[in-house]
Amino acid sequence: MGGDFGPRSIVQACIASLSATPSLHLTLVGQPSLLEELIASHPAVDRARLTITPASETISMDDKPATALRGKPDSSMRVALELLRDGKVQACVSAGNTGALMALSRYVLKTLPGIDRPAMVAAIPTQKGYCQLLDLGANVDCSAEHLFQFAVMGSVAAEALGVARPRVALLNIGTEDIKGNQQVKLAATLLQGARGLNYIGFVEGDGLYRGEADVVVCDGFVGNILLKSSEGLATMIATRIEALFKQNLASRMVGALALPLMRRLQADLAPARHNGASFLGLQGIVVKSHGSAGVEGFQSAIARALIEIQENLPQRLHGRLEDLLP
Amino acid sequence: MGGDFGPRSIVQACIASLSATPSLHLTLVGQPSLLEELIASHPAVDRARLTITPASETISMDDKPATALRGKPDSSMRVALELLRDGKVQACVSAGNTGALMALSRYVLKTLPGIDRPAMVAAIPTQKGYCQLLDLGANVDCSAEHLFQFAVMGSVAAEALGVARPRVALLNIGTEDIKGNQQVKLAATLLQGARGLNYIGFVEGDGLYRGEADVVVCDGFVGNILLKSSEGLATMIATRIEALFKQNLASRMVGALALPLMRRLQADLAPARHNGASFLGLQGIVVKSHGSAGVEGFQSAIARALIEIQENLPQRLHGRLEDLLP
Repeated sequence: MGGDFGPRSIVQACIASLSATPSLHLTLVGQPSLLEELIASHPAVDRARLTITPASETISMDDKPATALRGKPDSSMRVALELLRDGKVQACVSAGNTGALMALSRYVLKTLPGIDRPAMVAAIPTQKGYCQLLDLGANVDCSAEHLFQFAVMGSVAAEALGVARPRVALLNIGTEDIKGNQQVKLAATLLQGARGLNYIGFVEGDGLYRGEADVVVCDGFVGNILLKSSEGLATMIATRIEALFKQNLASRMVGALALPLMRRLQADLAPARHNGASFLGLQGIVVKSHGSAGVEGFQSAIARALIEIQENLPQRLHGRLEDLLP
Repeated sequence: MGGDFGPRSIVQACIASLSATPSLHLTLVGQPSLLEELIASHPAVDRARLTITPASETISMDDKPATALRGKPDSSMRVALELLRDGKVQACVSAGNTGALMALSRYVLKTLPGIDRPAMVAAIPTQKGYCQLLDLGANVDCSAEHLFQFAVMGSVAAEALGVARPRVALLNIGTEDIKGNQQVKLAATLLQGARGLNYIGFVEGDGLYRGEADVVVCDGFVGNILLKSSEGLATMIATRIEALFKQNLASRMVGALALPLMRRLQADLAPARHNGASFLGLQGIVVKSHGSAGVEGFQSAIARALIEIQENLPQRLHGRLEDLLP
């Protein structure tokens, strides 16, 4: 029921995903009459693979996590997570309120043994491909141990996405040992001693975009600022390019020619918006689609959930954590 | 003697600045024979306005702040700061090692009364103009009081640069009161109670680039990551645009036409690189030119120092701090 565009674009994305992936089954959780009405406008859909589970309440984008936890026992978000907990579905995808989704996920699914707090991870484009950046805002204050756990989770997630021996780095304001705050320095010591993890040291903000690492670890305050300021800068650059191309007749002509190139670039630059963020460290797969991502974004989030199901990500994480955590 | 391109480009920048500003006098600090040789290739220069003060040592880009403080008593950086302390010059501009420059500035010049730590500030381009972002890396761990002092200093600096009643904001991961870490929440309380400061609340990473504030305050860890990741992203976008424009004949033609537009955009996007960063809170004006900024960058740093001299920035800061600080 969530997302800036509401259930209409989610239903559309679901129907597109069903026809793209014949083995996929989807359960929509929410107000049945509304959902049936939205499905009815797509008569070709295979209803054997698209079911509805009713939920009478909806968590709004402004609801506090406490409201989601205590005030709305029959919210679509909570019912979806309970289906996951009870083994009736294999993953949960939501475009709703991030804070509420994290709080409910922790409460309903619980974290994996050895994990204090789940982290949010997304793929960020770099000069060489992508890097998994975590945490993106679920955990504001982090100890060295939390950063260490994020590094392990990020490494396993990158492997599941096809990266062999992912290069794991800590985000810092310099690459020398003496740089950074206490938590980062202590986390570096923990990571240097970890067997089976390809820890490569510190990476700076520009190094991240140069593609120096496959997994970049930071606390949720820094990660959220980095992600949102990058989104803001990419939007500003796109706006300025458009403005430049509109200045006079000559540049308008260039602009008309350059437009398709620019569109591809913009789509390329916003994969976090497009592919969604995963919650790592839970006993279950939860993918958060960006609220403003629209149909294509929600489809990408479903695709990410499918990969995590195929790779059995929580199980892999659990195994690796048993090896690595003290 | 500093900077990625060494004294050659600094001498070039100085000579260009002297001819652009007839009232300007410059003192070059470093190895006299080398500097004389570099000046000799510009015979038209007005030597009455360009003097040399000898310094036998040079701080390298890898030197630790402790080495700069204790190991090199006759470094060009230190001698330049001593000229400033002794009133022989009105500002110091350097392209050298940032950590060393900050440590030496604090030691030689001292901070203004009421200021615990100087901060580094630079102008960041936004959708609506510029915002002053601080701290950019001089202070890794910051208390709420430090953030409050940064806010006051940033506000005065923005005023000196021509902004009336600058909108001051704290960088945070949400705009609601409950968001953020302890320091940020407490700093918000301090700022809400400050008379004569146009505090507008929290701003997020994307809000910064939307131009929601004229002054954005954060700790040096976050500010450095934001600045460097923005530089990295802007470079990546520029590289991708170039690559897109080289893919086939049609796009190569578009690219050739678009190139001048793109160059303007890139220059526009790297003002921190171009204009340098100011150290605020010292008893004297110190501007740090970006090490890789080249001739034009160093010229801009000199220009920024000139504005701060005209506006008597340290004196203005001192007066405002007396009014505002408890």
